[in-house]
Amino acid sequence: MTDAAELFSEERSAEVVAASFAATPDPRLRRVLTSLVRHLHDFVKDVELTEAEWAAAIDFLTATGKMCTDTRQEFILLSDVLGASMLVETINNRAVGGLTESTVEGPFHMVASPPRDLGADIAEDGKGAPCLVTGSVTGSDGAPVANATIDVWQANDEGYYDVQQPGVQPPLNLRGLFTADADGTFWFRTIVPRYYPIPQDGPVGRLLTATARHPNRPAHIHFEVSAPGYRTVTTHLFVAGTPYIDSDAVFGVKPSLVREFPEVDDPGRAAEVGLPNPFRTVNFDVVLRPDTVDREA
Amino acid sequence: MTDAAELFSEERSAEVVAASFAATPDPRLRRVLTSLVRHLHDFVKDVELTEAEWAAAIDFLTATGKMCTDTRQEFILLSDVLGASMLVETINNRAVGGLTESTVEGPFHMVASPPRDLGADIAEDGKGAPCLVTGSVTGSDGAPVANATIDVWQANDEGYYDVQQPGVQPPLNLRGLFTADADGTFWFRTIVPRYYPIPQDGPVGRLLTATARHPNRPAHIHFEVSAPGYRTVTTHLFVAGTPYIDSDAVFGVKPSLVREFPEVDDPGRAAEVGLPNPFRTVNFDVVLRPDTVDREA
Repeated sequence: MTDAAELFSEERSAEVVAASFAATPDPRLRRVLTSLVRHLHDFVKDVELTEAEWAAAIDFLTATGKMCTDTRQEFILLSDVLGASMLVETINNRAVGGLTESTVEGPFHMVASPPRDLGADIAEDGKGAPCLVTGSVTGSDGAPVANATIDVWQANDEGYYDVQQPGVQPPLNLRGLFTADADGTFWFRTIVPRYYPIPQDGPVGRLLTATARHPNRPAHIHFEVSAPGYRTVTTHLFVAGTPYIDSDAVFGVKPSLVREFPEVDDPGRAAEVGLPNPFRTVNFDVVLRPDTVDREA
Repeated sequence: MTDAAELFSEERSAEVVAASFAATPDPRLRRVLTSLVRHLHDFVKDVELTEAEWAAAIDFLTATGKMCTDTRQEFILLSDVLGASMLVETINNRAVGGLTESTVEGPFHMVASPPRDLGADIAEDGKGAPCLVTGSVTGSDGAPVANATIDVWQANDEGYYDVQQPGVQPPLNLRGLFTADADGTFWFRTIVPRYYPIPQDGPVGRLLTATARHPNRPAHIHFEVSAPGYRTVTTHLFVAGTPYIDSDAVFGVKPSLVREFPEVDDPGRAAEVGLPNPFRTVNFDVVLRPDTVDREA
């Protein structure tokens, strides 16, 4: 009365479980789950996972879920340190020649950046090495993107975001929402950010410790650049020479996103841009993809 | 200053992430994580997971963690419905000819079974079709295992375990810890269990609904049989002909574990075993592997 051919076996485990999803109404969900089951079973078989290791995995995943709150997303952190976030991001934003490459958004874009005028200083507490950021937004045809929106956020010179230091940093410190001018150019004042560790007080931190991995991200400024008719790009501007530039804990670095931040020692120029002398500078020209271009083009 | 060859790319994603685990002190942990990363990245690439699907996966895993309590383990349930629990169990307990096959322990062995005398009735509320369970415990050489320990637990005839119905079922209803006699035989009285659904009020239930899978497990009695010098076997005795015997939601059925529960209509025998007439019977002979036998033998 039981049909052994349809029952679970080590040899046919993935087939049998995949078959249980055969009636899934959504064909995409069916495809994703079938592939997930196949790769999950291949992994278990490849390492011959022991019962104790399986139990440890259950405990780890449970603790990861328990760590999540409105302001802490430990599963995203886990996806990040396993390179899964960066892989999904890369697959869905394959760079076409000349376009600005994207990278992970990260977990700190949790508050809306305040609209600010071009040239404004987003370092509300004035702490750190002053820096002038300039740049332009163009389409892939080279035409300026007038009035593009540039959303920026970054850590301070101690490696903390405002939301991590309430009462220490002013609210919305080092965040700004800018509108490029008619020829797509933008500029603002800030300070040079520092590298920082991802949160280490949860299961992901324990994983990094157990594997002798450091938790640090190289110094960067987050950019999200958008304009009607163009695909939004979420990316970072990395500080050349920052510690951990070759070993980002979340694998976010792409060579095209790394820039020198040279020092300018010129009192006249400093006065002109409203910064103390000397100051650092960086230029970031952003190239957007028109919405009409197929992503595989 | 950045070495592009060491940075993340779609093509080399798994290699780059695996390399980050290269200094893991425990070689087994390094091996498991390297394989995990490779299969995880293969999965993401195979289906070209979208950013929306990735976000849905993060939300699903987070909700699964949030559902876990001291008496509810949603990640084990997830592992169960994906066949991962059964695969780990099968790999680690490969059947050698003649030995009793194992299956998943399940989440309901959370309270210790009460020691009972051979012949005792574990159906404390007397509800359901009465049943006599008989059996023997031998080693793979056929020699009886005197005084083997037989731990049994099961659902009632409505498909619920005692811990799911506090105040409805007596505490420790349908659980018992027996000691076989000197020739390894055992017997006890119970009722025939019913099939039942796994818990459906969490993320795993939503997964089953979205994939048009039923949540049911075929009727079974759990056994955990142990004795000094033998490897403990954790298994089920399945009721032949029960609904869902060919489509267990957690893939636990093995043909060697399915038994008929025939009815006996014999007032004399009924009086002898202390059950109303007619009653059901089942026999389960358990064969244990000596600890000294290599599992691959």
